[in-house]
Amino acid sequence: MQLGVIGLGRMGQIVVDRVLEAGHDVIAFDLDPEAVATAADAGAEPAESVSDLADRLGEEKRIWLMVPAGDAVDATLEDLDPHLDSEDVVVDGGNSYFEDSVRRAEVCSAAYLDCGTSGGPAGAELGFSLMVGGPEWAYEELTPVFDAVATGPDGHEHMGEAGSGHYVKMVHNGVEYALMQTYGEGFELLHEGRYDLDLENVASVWNNGAVIRSWLLELCEEAFREEGTDLGTVADRIEGGSTGTWTVQEGLEQEVPLPLIYTALVERFGSRADDGRFSRRLANRLRYGFGRHEVPRRED
Amino acid sequence: MQLGVIGLGRMGQIVVDRVLEAGHDVIAFDLDPEAVATAADAGAEPAESVSDLADRLGEEKRIWLMVPAGDAVDATLEDLDPHLDSEDVVVDGGNSYFEDSVRRAEVCSAAYLDCGTSGGPAGAELGFSLMVGGPEWAYEELTPVFDAVATGPDGHEHMGEAGSGHYVKMVHNGVEYALMQTYGEGFELLHEGRYDLDLENVASVWNNGAVIRSWLLELCEEAFREEGTDLGTVADRIEGGSTGTWTVQEGLEQEVPLPLIYTALVERFGSRADDGRFSRRLANRLRYGFGRHEVPRRED
Amino acid sequence: MQLGVIGLGRMGQIVVDRVLEAGHDVIAFDLDPEAVATAADAGAEPAESVSDLADRLGEEKRIWLMVPAGDAVDATLEDLDPHLDSEDVVVDGGNSYFEDSVRRAEVCSAAYLDCGTSGGPAGAELGFSLMVGGPEWAYEELTPVFDAVATGPDGHEHMGEAGSGHYVKMVHNGVEYALMQTYGEGFELLHEGRYDLDLENVASVWNNGAVIRSWLLELCEEAFREEGTDLGTVADRIEGGSTGTWTVQEGLEQEVPLPLIYTALVERFGSRADDGRFSRRLANRLRYGFGRHEVPRRED
Amino acid sequence: MQLGVIGLGRMGQIVVDRVLEAGHDVIAFDLDPEAVATAADAGAEPAESVSDLADRLGEEKRIWLMVPAGDAVDATLEDLDPHLDSEDVVVDGGNSYFEDSVRRAEVCSAAYLDCGTSGGPAGAELGFSLMVGGPEWAYEELTPVFDAVATGPDGHEHMGEAGSGHYVKMVHNGVEYALMQTYGEGFELLHEGRYDLDLENVASVWNNGAVIRSWLLELCEEAFREEGTDLGTVADRIEGGSTGTWTVQEGLEQEVPLPLIYTALVERFGSRADDGRFSRRLANRLRYGFGRHEVPRRED
Repeated sequence: MQLGVIGLGRMGQIVVDRVLEAGHDVIAFDLDPEAVATAADAGAEPAESVSDLADRLGEEKRIWLMVPAGDAVDATLEDLDPHLDSEDVVVDGGNSYFEDSVRRAEVCSAAYLDCGTSGGPAGAELGFSLMVGGPEWAYEELTPVFDAVATGPDGHEHMGEAGSGHYVKMVHNGVEYALMQTYGEGFELLHEGRYDLDLENVASVWNNGAVIRSWLLELCEEAFREEGTDLGTVADRIEGGSTGTWTVQEGLEQEVPLPLIYTALVERFGSRADDGRFSRRLANRLRYGFGRHEVPRRED
Repeated sequence: MQLGVIGLGRMGQIVVDRVLEAGHDVIAFDLDPEAVATAADAGAEPAESVSDLADRLGEEKRIWLMVPAGDAVDATLEDLDPHLDSEDVVVDGGNSYFEDSVRRAEVCSAAYLDCGTSGGPAGAELGFSLMVGGPEWAYEELTPVFDAVATGPDGHEHMGEAGSGHYVKMVHNGVEYALMQTYGEGFELLHEGRYDLDLENVASVWNNGAVIRSWLLELCEEAFREEGTDLGTVADRIEGGSTGTWTVQEGLEQEVPLPLIYTALVERFGSRADDGRFSRRLANRLRYGFGRHEVPRRED
Repeated sequence: MQLGVIGLGRMGQIVVDRVLEAGHDVIAFDLDPEAVATAADAGAEPAESVSDLADRLGEEKRIWLMVPAGDAVDATLEDLDPHLDSEDVVVDGGNSYFEDSVRRAEVCSAAYLDCGTSGGPAGAELGFSLMVGGPEWAYEELTPVFDAVATGPDGHEHMGEAGSGHYVKMVHNGVEYALMQTYGEGFELLHEGRYDLDLENVASVWNNGAVIRSWLLELCEEAFREEGTDLGTVADRIEGGSTGTWTVQEGLEQEVPLPLIYTALVERFGSRADDGRFSRRLANRLRYGFGRHEVPRRED
Repeated sequence: MQLGVIGLGRMGQIVVDRVLEAGHDVIAFDLDPEAVATAADAGAEPAESVSDLADRLGEEKRIWLMVPAGDAVDATLEDLDPHLDSEDVVVDGGNSYFEDSVRRAEVCSAAYLDCGTSGGPAGAELGFSLMVGGPEWAYEELTPVFDAVATGPDGHEHMGEAGSGHYVKMVHNGVEYALMQTYGEGFELLHEGRYDLDLENVASVWNNGAVIRSWLLELCEEAFREEGTDLGTVADRIEGGSTGTWTVQEGLEQEVPLPLIYTALVERFGSRADDGRFSRRLANRLRYGFGRHEVPRRED
């Protein structure tokens, strides 16, 4: 099988490598010539532009986009579209918002698959988990590629119509935030608590048979092993949050309570309040107002 | 009527003043002679010790304790008890834990009233809200004093048996935390949000007829007037929390969900995590673990 | 002064009454002829249509809309617009979404004021709290009307440019949800807790001098007085939630944590899950999965 | 090695089986003679009482308690103690409160190990995760038994001094509640959301390579496979909660915010409010109070 891959960042490169390794042909393009060269070294045929990539693919083009969510996807699709027809298949393997995917599926001249991809760079060896939305025939057509990119046949599933792949991935990410925060609460209590514990040991014994074992807990174990039981110099300002925000917004739309996911999300917002949380500052002034508790002041 | 007042801090002094003003006699004692002198200046008869105060009161002693919750109450009661019998009445007007009040009521030789007192120093002029637990006859006996200390006859109520006064006051304080945090959330959103608003104006117009008007909102208005719409130099580390903790513990005991009160309480804990929240630091390391997001580091 | 009022529901009728009472003239219209008749009985001049109302107003028209938020506002404005020019002023006193108000202000031929109105039907006597956005000259022009509709000169404020009035009202409503939920938590704990308390008494004594006194707490007192201390037959499914949802969405947009407002909002969603919360049902099956705890089953 | 096992419920029987299978000798006792007979069938030597069990063990007794947390542990220890000396080792493998374990360790005549045991009945084949507190020499002495009962040498760890094993297990359970609730939120959103999804498929593809893969997610997959994607007749009232309550209480004690664990815990409390949540009922009455929204009433 022949696959065009557009977008050769960390994740796109893994797609290239796994597809090549499975014995397929890859034509690769990225705006960064160095990334194209790396893919070529790995065995892919380099393309000079989106158009060139499309030209090099024969009839029944199969193309995997791994470009940053947002405008880059639309720009790439605009360049691609003149080269596409209804027998072609485009996969968006990035973290796109599901409503964008629904819209793109409607206007794209090819069949359009929205593919939520989980597993991160660590999936290079194990393979990814792929949640795919869009036309069933296109999903089946791409099965050899999905087999290669995923952990195997069990690592990809057809979720449903257009947008459903990115929808399930969006919820996955919301869940991910709350799982991380949950382990964080547990370890914070153990760290501040009554016993002087080796948290790597705790994570390790939990990972061997405890109800709460998981891959994220294996990453906790790794974190304590590499950073020390007090996490050394790791700081507490957390970036990111867009997919979690989408999840909470969809919960509001569907009137589904998501208090744990919400709390985990806004913990990130709170961590970025560099001048101190306004609500806390007001509370301090109110405590003076009714109880004459001394108002703490910033040092300048 | 003659009232002994033990404990002449800010709140105790207000009790003295209001009771004197209502035309009653006060005998006052505090470990700090200056506080006793101030009370004497206001018209109270000074006592030199707890025993001396008890001796100066005739039969049917009525005594108001306004000492810090905890050991100081027990110590004072220990000194008082030899002077007390079942026709005497002791009021604990402080922020005692209700189970301590139940215990003290059982061992005290006098009738024992636990009196939750709300209103803060600002109550000096308006009077306090008094929630009183203990024997009904003792509550009625003290009515002239309660009328004087409270906002009037409507400002005090008999809640029920021993401990119920401090129980209701404990819940009051939990509610207070969450009300403050709620206004804080609203003003934080207005402060960070799309419009350049004068928050004093917002608080003022809300206080004139809006559903959410309240005394705490009047204190918000005062805060913005005195500190400026961005709260100037007020810092964000919030001290305190014991009565809120009791409320949440009682919620656990009674299996009553108190998510808003809990969240407002632990916001204080979080504001005191000077080295950064451990849970957030772990999240950052995990985000590297699965997504190779760069780990932020503390500057040293 | 002459004011056209369109929309004569409960709130619109109060506007008519208060403006008339202040000595102004009112021309009134509603799709429901009975409502128009009621306004006419109160002293307003009835109009037969939006156009008719516009015709009856002279130059420098001043018009107050009190129609349901959403399409009804747009439909009314469409009918009005041919009659308007830049010297006219339209006030939207309803619960419109602030971004709709920004959009309407841009296209309306008259000066447009978005006016958040709080106080509910209870404001008939006291007057409302009015948060007004839009051109300053228009706000000043309408001052006599605002003085009449509000609690007085302190009951209305100019918040800022277009949309700011409804923006502040949106946040007001989010705060309102969380304040209600907070009092609910407190009274739920008192109701389920250790003492047999008269909750009307508790609310009453708190309203007389306690830190947490407020108008909502007065409504709690009324609730217990009229329904009984156990709230009698009042059910627990809570409708509504749109303005709270907007507040939370804006918090996500501005990256401001609003955990109390969020929790209060989704409490409503949860109260409407008639088949049982899916998350809880899954938890029960998982408890069987790892611990063989018996799975509870629905009775059919 | 020879091990006495007291308490032959589901978990105790698994201990017996795994220790026998590893080639050790077991003397078994339970108050229920049938349970003893089952153990005997499996190859254990039956005992007739706690004393009899102690007598049958030689010097350097090693005894594993697997009785319900609480009074049963104290009662058993009281019966055992006259037979014990400082060369003996008692393991409490149940879900005891860590402060009880500290107390028992102090008074027990033998060395005392508190052993948190996770994995549930499902651990019969795989083995458990064991978190052990108490004297190091005793932990090492019991290693062959721990190797047999756990998943192997990596499945047990010495956490620290007395109580630390049950302390870590307590936190484990708090984390467990929040992980379950997190997955529940995600699947609830998918169930109520925009797409008609097969939740078993979703869980399956997530378990194959996604960041959020875990054993609990495997149990979710099993739940949807066995109950159907809508969880069939599973009801939503959740029992239990004691270990989660302990975790939250310890968080209050240590001033560590645990909002996700708290929320997951009180979700259980809320699921058991058969007459409707009081706080919601009050909110409905307040909505009438300020907005004349109709009060919903219970049908009787």
